[in-house]
Amino acid sequence: MSDNALPLVISAPEPRTLDLIFTPPQLALFRKKYRIVETTPEGVAKLPANVLAEARYIVGQPPIASETLQKMTALRCIFNVETNLLNNMPYETLFARGIHVVTTGLVFAEPVAELGLAMALNLARNIVDADLAFRQGKELWGGDGNQTARLLSGADVGIIGFGDLGRALNRLLTGFRTRSRVYDPWLPPSILVDNGVEPASLDEVLSQSDFVFVVASVTSENQGFLDADSFAKMRKGAAFILLSRAGVVDFDALMQAVRSGHIVAASDVFPEEPLAKDHPVRALPGFLRSAHRAGALDIAFKRMGDMVLEDMDLVDRGLPPLRSKRAERETVSRMRSKPVDRN
Amino acid sequence: MSDNALPLVISAPEPRTLDLIFTPPQLALFRKKYRIVETTPEGVAKLPANVLAEARYIVGQPPIASETLQKMTALRCIFNVETNLLNNMPYETLFARGIHVVTTGLVFAEPVAELGLAMALNLARNIVDADLAFRQGKELWGGDGNQTARLLSGADVGIIGFGDLGRALNRLLTGFRTRSRVYDPWLPPSILVDNGVEPASLDEVLSQSDFVFVVASVTSENQGFLDADSFAKMRKGAAFILLSRAGVVDFDALMQAVRSGHIVAASDVFPEEPLAKDHPVRALPGFLRSAHRAGALDIAFKRMGDMVLEDMDLVDRGLPPLRSKRAERETVSRMRSKPVDRN
Amino acid sequence: MSDNALPLVISAPEPRTLDLIFTPPQLALFRKKYRIVETTPEGVAKLPANVLAEARYIVGQPPIASETLQKMTALRCIFNVETNLLNNMPYETLFARGIHVVTTGLVFAEPVAELGLAMALNLARNIVDADLAFRQGKELWGGDGNQTARLLSGADVGIIGFGDLGRALNRLLTGFRTRSRVYDPWLPPSILVDNGVEPASLDEVLSQSDFVFVVASVTSENQGFLDADSFAKMRKGAAFILLSRAGVVDFDALMQAVRSGHIVAASDVFPEEPLAKDHPVRALPGFLRSAHRAGALDIAFKRMGDMVLEDMDLVDRGLPPLRSKRAERETVSRMRSKPVDRN
Amino acid sequence: MSDNALPLVISAPEPRTLDLIFTPPQLALFRKKYRIVETTPEGVAKLPANVLAEARYIVGQPPIASETLQKMTALRCIFNVETNLLNNMPYETLFARGIHVVTTGLVFAEPVAELGLAMALNLARNIVDADLAFRQGKELWGGDGNQTARLLSGADVGIIGFGDLGRALNRLLTGFRTRSRVYDPWLPPSILVDNGVEPASLDEVLSQSDFVFVVASVTSENQGFLDADSFAKMRKGAAFILLSRAGVVDFDALMQAVRSGHIVAASDVFPEEPLAKDHPVRALPGFLRSAHRAGALDIAFKRMGDMVLEDMDLVDRGLPPLRSKRAERETVSRMRSKPVDRN
Repeated sequence: MSDNALPLVISAPEPRTLDLIFTPPQLALFRKKYRIVETTPEGVAKLPANVLAEARYIVGQPPIASETLQKMTALRCIFNVETNLLNNMPYETLFARGIHVVTTGLVFAEPVAELGLAMALNLARNIVDADLAFRQGKELWGGDGNQTARLLSGADVGIIGFGDLGRALNRLLTGFRTRSRVYDPWLPPSILVDNGVEPASLDEVLSQSDFVFVVASVTSENQGFLDADSFAKMRKGAAFILLSRAGVVDFDALMQAVRSGHIVAASDVFPEEPLAKDHPVRALPGFLRSAHRAGALDIAFKRMGDMVLEDMDLVDRGLPPLRSKRAERETVSRMRSKPVDRN
Repeated sequence: MSDNALPLVISAPEPRTLDLIFTPPQLALFRKKYRIVETTPEGVAKLPANVLAEARYIVGQPPIASETLQKMTALRCIFNVETNLLNNMPYETLFARGIHVVTTGLVFAEPVAELGLAMALNLARNIVDADLAFRQGKELWGGDGNQTARLLSGADVGIIGFGDLGRALNRLLTGFRTRSRVYDPWLPPSILVDNGVEPASLDEVLSQSDFVFVVASVTSENQGFLDADSFAKMRKGAAFILLSRAGVVDFDALMQAVRSGHIVAASDVFPEEPLAKDHPVRALPGFLRSAHRAGALDIAFKRMGDMVLEDMDLVDRGLPPLRSKRAERETVSRMRSKPVDRN
Repeated sequence: MSDNALPLVISAPEPRTLDLIFTPPQLALFRKKYRIVETTPEGVAKLPANVLAEARYIVGQPPIASETLQKMTALRCIFNVETNLLNNMPYETLFARGIHVVTTGLVFAEPVAELGLAMALNLARNIVDADLAFRQGKELWGGDGNQTARLLSGADVGIIGFGDLGRALNRLLTGFRTRSRVYDPWLPPSILVDNGVEPASLDEVLSQSDFVFVVASVTSENQGFLDADSFAKMRKGAAFILLSRAGVVDFDALMQAVRSGHIVAASDVFPEEPLAKDHPVRALPGFLRSAHRAGALDIAFKRMGDMVLEDMDLVDRGLPPLRSKRAERETVSRMRSKPVDRN
Repeated sequence: MSDNALPLVISAPEPRTLDLIFTPPQLALFRKKYRIVETTPEGVAKLPANVLAEARYIVGQPPIASETLQKMTALRCIFNVETNLLNNMPYETLFARGIHVVTTGLVFAEPVAELGLAMALNLARNIVDADLAFRQGKELWGGDGNQTARLLSGADVGIIGFGDLGRALNRLLTGFRTRSRVYDPWLPPSILVDNGVEPASLDEVLSQSDFVFVVASVTSENQGFLDADSFAKMRKGAAFILLSRAGVVDFDALMQAVRSGHIVAASDVFPEEPLAKDHPVRALPGFLRSAHRAGALDIAFKRMGDMVLEDMDLVDRGLPPLRSKRAERETVSRMRSKPVDRN
């Protein structure tokens, strides 16, 4: 088949790169199956008319004006490999035309869930401070070092948000026989039940858990919804693990709840990233810090390429994409997670 | 029923205490169902003849001479709540008479497995040093901090020893979809298969794993069986997690393998405990230390009391004990784990 | 709130009825939360203009002309409770306008999967004929009656189609430790892997399975795709269990494969329903028959009402429906399963 | 190694044969690793003194007099491959000497559990009579044929007895999300909890279950313990599935409970086997019959050989047998299941 017969892909994956999201063999396959036109996000609008007219896919999340979209008559699917949805394209038109906008954020679910579980176990067993004490010859042996130690097995777990990440976390908890309550107002309760967790109100999740995992996206409605009142409702000594976006919590209130000794906490996300060198969370005992490292593993990025190839294969055969997650007409404009500017 | 009709228990649980192994309500129940004669391990031999003659149970692991045992005509079961078997009683006579010697070490399986899993995740994600860097304002953000980060999900896991602890660990791994190979020469391979793991040789476990967990007891045959050669067989960068007893490894060789950068490691046990203040492992990068804290949780000790009560209830009804683990005639003399002198 | 402020639902669920799909308390809730206008499928077009203009939901699958749809300016979701999609409404317009068309067929997955599993076990153990022989005093005892008996546990299982029904079946097989291969060209392979099954070609599924379950919908492309050649590829003595629609198999060829002794089979669906009294499948040894009874359990119908209420609640709050299954623009016109005319 | 150096095995496996319990390659291995002296059960006592003196193992359950046992100074383990324990050897001496008596009945757990599950599903969906009606052209289509149909998924399940068979059944139920209550007075409740089932009294199991599975062995204490009162406590329409031994039920009362329409039932075992040609259970509607076929599959017998080889390998290395089940001093004399006289 001549190259011109291959489906055309506009590639503008910034801040990702094709080398980041594809393994070499997958990238070779990608280049073999498709004509790839590589450009910057800003460059998309300036592409020749025939390129726009022939493009079946976009990889990336470039700004797209209505005029540009009008020229893209063969467009079938936009693969957002940054994974946070910006409000930079005419979604209504895309939905009306049946052009899918999909994100590949699923790849981060497993790495983030693993770090979240690790954080919970670290808080439960005080692993970091125990190792530091050991380095300094101040370690406490046996039960002497376990005054606040407890188990995750059999514990009451609360999960706020039950998208890909909440589900990945729930899967990792399989062997722990926890009782898990989930708050997710965007899901029908029966889907939670099908996943083996209990639908619960936010108050129930906060007040009846030994470990609370926050994995909810920021939306226009939930910014800062976890505040001083929320932390006050938590069980004395419970652990709060923040994995999604700092925007959903009142971070000062969280630090205060830890400082007062009411709860312990861990977080992978912060109000500003990078964080000021003198930010008080850096020196806060009872707080475990991770510098937005939960998801950004090479293996996660490489799985993006797999997802893109699998879904392109479906769309090429006239089927809907199923591997990536589709933006929804109802919710696309509500999402407020800031995109990342680094990988 | 008059108190004298209650079954008699000799209690000498040192280094445990009844308050350690029973919750208050369980202790009340214990005292209600049985006549308890409390003494020291050394005091057992000096108990009045009628106490010895009437004793149905011993809680503890006191030294028992043959003459003493001969006087204990009603003895049915000895509950070793320290959990390491000493060679301080005539086991052959006990077995011949059908007196069970049981240990309650199962209670430590879950806490140790949780710490072991936490250690694996810590090594995989470098959580301790990342938090330390964050405290010092030197953290690396996102993928920059993840150069060596990897997943446990889907990894090749090796487990050496598949008793209570190996099984508890395997259960915790349920949600991780690992491929797990197990080396345990004391078990028939089909039992491993029934547990969803692959029977493997020691070499296979060492050379084909991303994470190696050592949960084997020390026996007269396996002291120091994990040595420089063993570590050399491991995959570059693999993680070695030692949870059972330091006696099974050549500890210097382990440190050298970590120092050289070939593997990373974590350990809850050490050649001497407490450890010399200037022991080189304290300053060894790539090594995560825990001061024999894996099992000694209050909840674990309390479960001992539950086990004792459940098994006494069975034996009271003429049934064999099933909750605790019975010493085996064939292996009792091979066990070499040092007992603890603290809880 | 005055009744007129309640969202308006046009109810035309034929062949279902509201009493069939709702329990009394759920029906009371439905009537309390919504204004229900009940009509026949044909009656929808004749409803007053204001009813059409105000209708937020339709329950049922009435024929809808473009002119009618144009009047339904508030329509958000059509709940097809028959569950097979007819080509009787302007789907393109519905999709363009973002009106969801959803089906509640998920409710049948569990009942059908249970019957499918039962059929497999019946074929494996010859339960029907053994009971009949027992009634007649001709039973064979112990191993004498087990010449062809075999286990499902540990067997090679093939599943053709992996929608709701395939997944429900896979879940029921959890405890059987089967090796399950799945053929589903509409799904990306990695989704199969995530579900613990192996993606496979149709030939692999047919030729490497001890039990083959057919749970694929009929589409415009797969009618009769399981034919004499397919059955010839199956293992000698393997079991073929047909659960979806007779249209996907060459039924005569299936009977011939059973008659020849090459395979055994079970089916819940037939080329005509009801079936001619003299149809040869009625007397065919090695064939287990069920008169399209797999899904039609009262409990399944009642769950439809739960789904409708859960999804209406989401849509009422501006969210997309998640419990029911959405018709897809790409595939809606390919579905060819005949609707049922009885419950 | 000269043959005389091989460990000696006395083989008297009646009613089994070596060909029944070993696959050809396993039998070859058995003959290669051991000196096999084959005899009848009665022949054991007459074996030459040196054979008796050298025998390390017995395969079978021959009668053994004390004098014979005294001559067997090297005996380490008796493998009962019939699997029901007869009172035909001096167990006390065997236990005192530390000679293991083990049974290989575990092999039947999986086949029996599969038939039990199949019976439950058959009763729930009336599969036998529905197929019979179909043969006769009297089938009812769709929901018309499902008036009494119900699901096992999500049902309340009761299990009486939780040995190998109860556990195998529980494993098969994994995917069904049942709530399972178990009555087993020989087990500590926490072991039931560990297996994911709820410890319950016999009354609770009978009165709160939709499906009751009886998998308890007959003992000197429980003969006929399930009687008219027991059946009266069951839920109207519930299913009673008898899989272990007829001796635990009052069979007439069971038939009467079915005849009256209070419950439905299935059984693999009967008061006499074979059963009288005119026994009323043959014609009893609502009763599913199986002629003691649940366990006697060829694959089960072959697994016996695997178990024997695995445990001999352990004992050869000075370890206790772990694959087979050991007779217990406390309970051996209570077992009353009649041995089979056919395979």
